[in-house]
Amino acid sequence: MIQHPAFTVEPWWIRECRLHLDVLPQTESVFALSNGHIGLRGNLDEGEPHGLPGTYLNSVYELRPLPYAEAGYGYPESGQTVVNITNGKLIRLLVGDEPFDVRYGTLHDHERRLDMRAGTLTRKVHWTSPAGGEIRLSSTRLVSFTHRAVAAVHYEVEPVDQPLSVVVQSELVANETLPGMGEDPRAAAALEAPLELEENTPGTSGVAVMVHCTRASRLRVAAAMRHDIDGPTGTRAEADGGDDVSRLTVATRLKPGERLRLVKYFAYGWSAQRSRPALHDQVVAALAAAHLTGWEGLLSDQRAYLDEFWAGADVEVEGDAEVQQAVRFGLFHLLQSGARLERRPVPGKGLTGSGYDGHAFWDTESFVLPVLTYTHPRSAADALEWRQSILPKAEDRAEQLGLRGAAFPWRTINGEECSGYWPAGTAAFHINADIADAVVRYVDATEDADFERETGVPLLVATARLWSSLGHHDIEGQYRIDGVTGPDEYSAVSDNNVYTNLMAQQNLRAAADACVRHSDRAQELGVGLEEIAIWRDAASAMVIPYDERMAVHPQSEGFTRHAVWDFDSTKPEQYPLLLHFPYFDLYRKQVVKQADLVLALHLRGDAFTPEEKARDFAYYERLTVRDSSLSACTQAVIAAEVGQLDLAYDYLGEAALMDLHDLEKNTRDGVHMASLAGAWTALVAGFGGMRAGNGRMCFSPRLPSGITRLCFRIRYRGRLLRVTVTADTTTYELLHGQALTLSHHGEEFTLDRAPLRRTTPVTPVPATRLRQPPGREPIPRHAAPPSRVTPSPSP
Amino acid sequence: MIQHPAFTVEPWWIRECRLHLDVLPQTESVFALSNGHIGLRGNLDEGEPHGLPGTYLNSVYELRPLPYAEAGYGYPESGQTVVNITNGKLIRLLVGDEPFDVRYGTLHDHERRLDMRAGTLTRKVHWTSPAGGEIRLSSTRLVSFTHRAVAAVHYEVEPVDQPLSVVVQSELVANETLPGMGEDPRAAAALEAPLELEENTPGTSGVAVMVHCTRASRLRVAAAMRHDIDGPTGTRAEADGGDDVSRLTVATRLKPGERLRLVKYFAYGWSAQRSRPALHDQVVAALAAAHLTGWEGLLSDQRAYLDEFWAGADVEVEGDAEVQQAVRFGLFHLLQSGARLERRPVPGKGLTGSGYDGHAFWDTESFVLPVLTYTHPRSAADALEWRQSILPKAEDRAEQLGLRGAAFPWRTINGEECSGYWPAGTAAFHINADIADAVVRYVDATEDADFERETGVPLLVATARLWSSLGHHDIEGQYRIDGVTGPDEYSAVSDNNVYTNLMAQQNLRAAADACVRHSDRAQELGVGLEEIAIWRDAASAMVIPYDERMAVHPQSEGFTRHAVWDFDSTKPEQYPLLLHFPYFDLYRKQVVKQADLVLALHLRGDAFTPEEKARDFAYYERLTVRDSSLSACTQAVIAAEVGQLDLAYDYLGEAALMDLHDLEKNTRDGVHMASLAGAWTALVAGFGGMRAGNGRMCFSPRLPSGITRLCFRIRYRGRLLRVTVTADTTTYELLHGQALTLSHHGEEFTLDRAPLRRTTPVTPVPATRLRQPPGREPIPRHAAPPSRVTPSPSP
Repeated sequence: MIQHPAFTVEPWWIRECRLHLDVLPQTESVFALSNGHIGLRGNLDEGEPHGLPGTYLNSVYELRPLPYAEAGYGYPESGQTVVNITNGKLIRLLVGDEPFDVRYGTLHDHERRLDMRAGTLTRKVHWTSPAGGEIRLSSTRLVSFTHRAVAAVHYEVEPVDQPLSVVVQSELVANETLPGMGEDPRAAAALEAPLELEENTPGTSGVAVMVHCTRASRLRVAAAMRHDIDGPTGTRAEADGGDDVSRLTVATRLKPGERLRLVKYFAYGWSAQRSRPALHDQVVAALAAAHLTGWEGLLSDQRAYLDEFWAGADVEVEGDAEVQQAVRFGLFHLLQSGARLERRPVPGKGLTGSGYDGHAFWDTESFVLPVLTYTHPRSAADALEWRQSILPKAEDRAEQLGLRGAAFPWRTINGEECSGYWPAGTAAFHINADIADAVVRYVDATEDADFERETGVPLLVATARLWSSLGHHDIEGQYRIDGVTGPDEYSAVSDNNVYTNLMAQQNLRAAADACVRHSDRAQELGVGLEEIAIWRDAASAMVIPYDERMAVHPQSEGFTRHAVWDFDSTKPEQYPLLLHFPYFDLYRKQVVKQADLVLALHLRGDAFTPEEKARDFAYYERLTVRDSSLSACTQAVIAAEVGQLDLAYDYLGEAALMDLHDLEKNTRDGVHMASLAGAWTALVAGFGGMRAGNGRMCFSPRLPSGITRLCFRIRYRGRLLRVTVTADTTTYELLHGQALTLSHHGEEFTLDRAPLRRTTPVTPVPATRLRQPPGREPIPRHAAPPSRVTPSPSP
Repeated sequence: MIQHPAFTVEPWWIRECRLHLDVLPQTESVFALSNGHIGLRGNLDEGEPHGLPGTYLNSVYELRPLPYAEAGYGYPESGQTVVNITNGKLIRLLVGDEPFDVRYGTLHDHERRLDMRAGTLTRKVHWTSPAGGEIRLSSTRLVSFTHRAVAAVHYEVEPVDQPLSVVVQSELVANETLPGMGEDPRAAAALEAPLELEENTPGTSGVAVMVHCTRASRLRVAAAMRHDIDGPTGTRAEADGGDDVSRLTVATRLKPGERLRLVKYFAYGWSAQRSRPALHDQVVAALAAAHLTGWEGLLSDQRAYLDEFWAGADVEVEGDAEVQQAVRFGLFHLLQSGARLERRPVPGKGLTGSGYDGHAFWDTESFVLPVLTYTHPRSAADALEWRQSILPKAEDRAEQLGLRGAAFPWRTINGEECSGYWPAGTAAFHINADIADAVVRYVDATEDADFERETGVPLLVATARLWSSLGHHDIEGQYRIDGVTGPDEYSAVSDNNVYTNLMAQQNLRAAADACVRHSDRAQELGVGLEEIAIWRDAASAMVIPYDERMAVHPQSEGFTRHAVWDFDSTKPEQYPLLLHFPYFDLYRKQVVKQADLVLALHLRGDAFTPEEKARDFAYYERLTVRDSSLSACTQAVIAAEVGQLDLAYDYLGEAALMDLHDLEKNTRDGVHMASLAGAWTALVAGFGGMRAGNGRMCFSPRLPSGITRLCFRIRYRGRLLRVTVTADTTTYELLHGQALTLSHHGEEFTLDRAPLRRTTPVTPVPATRLRQPPGREPIPRHAAPPSRVTPSPSP
């Protein structure tokens, strides 16, 4: 957790006004820029000091061996790890005869600002070198949303009050030395200097190009740079390079009032198939296009792209400036992770760090895509098309496991399973139903029939086939799914996990329905009426365990008979539990890492009565320790639904501030995409009460005391809606598109041109606040004091 | 499986009449000699060819890293592996100018014979070198039961019909190159040349001594040799050495009728604490004592030790010569594994090979000790005193796991857990109840009150404390043990495993009873009446799941609702299943690797009615694939009990011939101590129907059609009994000790000096033979043809 206010609270910016070296690694993640294809951590321009240097290209990974003390059939032998590729953002500076390094000399002023409307990271520095050379420096960095392969830096340096000689070195550097590589010497060896040089053409003729290939995974990566230089007469530029570095050195002498300005354009490309010359040309061409657009053009394109995004996605929160900022921060990073995916995955940390080895998990389908589906639907389609692209590998995996259909990997970059611990990896089959759920949601939200036909049907069929081979009928004809792991990672390999069974049930039905709608496509995939009937039968006979004695749903069969974890004897420093207790002990007791049954209450709310929801939620609140970032947002949604609005508000705070406050102490490894998405979900699905499906969008708005006004935009079936909730009134507006039937707290109405107002019902304050495990209560949410807020209008 | 008859069928010998190089590795295990302290694989004297060179000292191991693709709390970081120590059995021979090597020249005759009454391995060779030098060679090897630190070889060579120059090199060699070290490069590096030289004193003055220390585990190992040489005048001997070899070279020229005879005495000592000079002196002293005894003295001491053993342990089987030989082979190896343990473990393979890394498992307490308890009880006490010696480590492990009492390691040499896969290691808590069971059995069989007080009570208390922290009461007051793994390794981490719960119940009660008998000792251990009451209450409230619907006991809660394994689609080459299917699939289905519920039917037979036993056995027969050597013997016992005598007989054959026929194709790694013990168990507990406990020994004899007479000896409470069973009559004799009450098929009687005869009841032939999974039926047992049998009287 960040102990001091690292960032100011402002609605459209994340601003750092002092350089705290203790949180440098965290700020590198928070200030990361990405377009879903390229990711640049918020490293200082000059490279040092740093927490973790990071430049990533989506799906560029190296292989590393996965070792086992005792091997087993079907264990993956090698894993994939995202690699830090050629660093193009590096600009070193020599002032007089001393290198600019914030750890030396005097740093008078420092400001970095992530501008969520401009899509830029700007930096302003006022620094005096140890020898007395005083400069002002400003840089602006962007990763272009409109030029997928391109990033750029606008860099300006000027002397303050005396003439200074200044040398700027703009570089491409590969195989940077990274801090601590983990304990396995073989894995570390695989990841040290993973790039083999194939070409290093210095920028003597303007454009410098470097081409590398990863040592084991054989992915070719090209990086290129070119510059616009603007300095006083006598400014001289030279290009050189060698081994893993390419350099443009610009030397000049600046008088007060003069400045050296450098615009650096850099571009990336990679391929597992294309040749070195092809990639060389690809990046040079990308630079030519960017250079033609120019710096100002890139800036204005960037802003236009974001204006369009915010127009359909923005959430306004009055009464809580921190949450206001955080939800936009979350949406901004979500867009960054998904904007230009083009059939690549959204990793758990986006492209903001190397946490989780850069792997994509179910986080994408169950947390990130529900937000992108209603705000930037093209990205949701892209991510699902990536799943389709790895379908052959998932089918191979299913075959290896003795199953039909597809078994998608628990964690992966290239589509092959990278999980080295099967009870919490391969056994977590729910990921397949989560993918199906994302397909169903996307198709419902967009009516994108082409997508459903081309991508949706194959994914639904492959996952339905998995479920129909994974389950079996018992002697009473009930359909059971035994020995699998649900979302809660403090339980594993149990029978009839309610979440899994309900999601599988939906998966089977959705596959059946989609095959009926696209019977020709179904036929291509070999789906006949008999198979469809088998799916429907399995769905209808699905076992949903219920504990009559306790009047709650057990997370899995037998769960409610297990011993309850001894929370009273667990010390605060023993969380997260998995670092202090063995799995065997966690698995056999009633203790929940993250929403599991409660996630079912959200995603399959139709399967529970309101009374069941209230009882189940209360029961699991006492057991859930939230040692995962995939929990608070779901708890917020259900807390709101059962009328525990202040509790929901606390959970909203936790989800929203996960990274800005570094609540799990690992933001240094990258931001938590799922939790960032959760801020939107807690607001829209929680306090907005939004649920959608089968062409119907329903709202049940209710606000906690800390929020005075909540306004959100949603894209649904070609419409753009705006919903504004206050304590008294909810206003529905159709900003774009044709009339649509909605519901407000169960009352249906048709929304057309004219805004409609409805009363926001009063939610009675609950008699008792629900209990959580001692010490694991969410931080009570108090709105940020208004004095720190800089008001700024919404677009 | 050995495809040709490797060994002749003779009652007291294992004899090989031809050298089959294809089964050389297996013969090295079968012909291994050991006294429980030293183990020598049956390598050829001259060292090559070999399958696996092997010289072991009980508990001399090296550490090796245990790697994990995904680490977890409480995972052991390093494992122990038995190391091949200094080879003292090596005697090379030069005939004329050519090395004696059976792969060259002409091998006219070859015989090796393991003599189970003499306790020796003899070898006779008639060979002509490629250059025409023709010799006869004989060697006799022993590992002394009476001189714990000593082994010896009597080696004799003579020319056949022409004078020959002969050179014999008798050596100590350390760090022999071993074949394939496994795939983990770090583990292989740790185990390559694991011995660091500390001293190499050549035998110039008669005794050669080498001292080494293991690289990481820091265990000091001393080896020494001295010789008696008898050759014609002019025979010359020289000692030299260097690095990891010490050598005595004896050169002579032999005329026909002359011979060179060498007696080699070699001794070993090791210590984690004693100094190099102390160990040096220790082995030199051991040699001095052995030399004083002399070769003939060692031979006669060896025979006397074995005469005493066989007098109390022999089993005679008429009608099946193969089983006759095999049960003696098993008893001989059991004695070898346990004779001179002196607080060291019995590894799963004894000291006959490096299989399972030389680890000890529950095999010892649940399969080996039940035999040694009634045949060589001192060894059972030794093995349990070893458990007591590692109790502090087991208590540390329990604490690490958040439990009270002791959590004994699943696999270990030095007492620390070496299991790198917790669901089939740490979670298999039943090992603790198995140790308690062995304590209870030993105390019942010996009335050894000192042992009970000094060793029994601490072991029972520590294990009872484990169970009382591992289980919990549910809302109805039933005592549950959730999330543990029973004996069947094709299920894991399930609730209320019947075997585990019944064994824990017995453990809790035995601890309570022992604490009442030794209340002062209990007090020393901090056990009060309240704790005893807690144990008794937990035992009384223990959940024993029962499936009313199927009218069988589920192996664990929910087991009988799982899908039954698709045996029909499983191909013969897909066994053992764990090499062809993922754990996730095995765990979630009804398929049983080895007796689990059926082992409970044996060890806790008191908890089941005869009808339950019959139904349960029939149910699990259909599910049990016997991918483990720890199964057939238990199935034999229960098959006999439920009247399936021919099925029991087939299982007896499988258990008994596991190694002589290499049924699991891994005898090369060492013999299967538990299965060898199982031959005795199948005969005595199966066809003899022997059960004992609480001072009562009961028999229910019944013979399968293939056995005409079964006669076994049993030591019980100071008595030596002999029971002789034929199809009609059972005769009970008290060979030694006071009168004793026994029972015969439930009818009690007192046995005193006079033999008593009882009728062996006729067991009706069952209407149907029970079904096993297709292709997994035991090999039908047909008695070996009598022509191959050489009759030989029992002592």
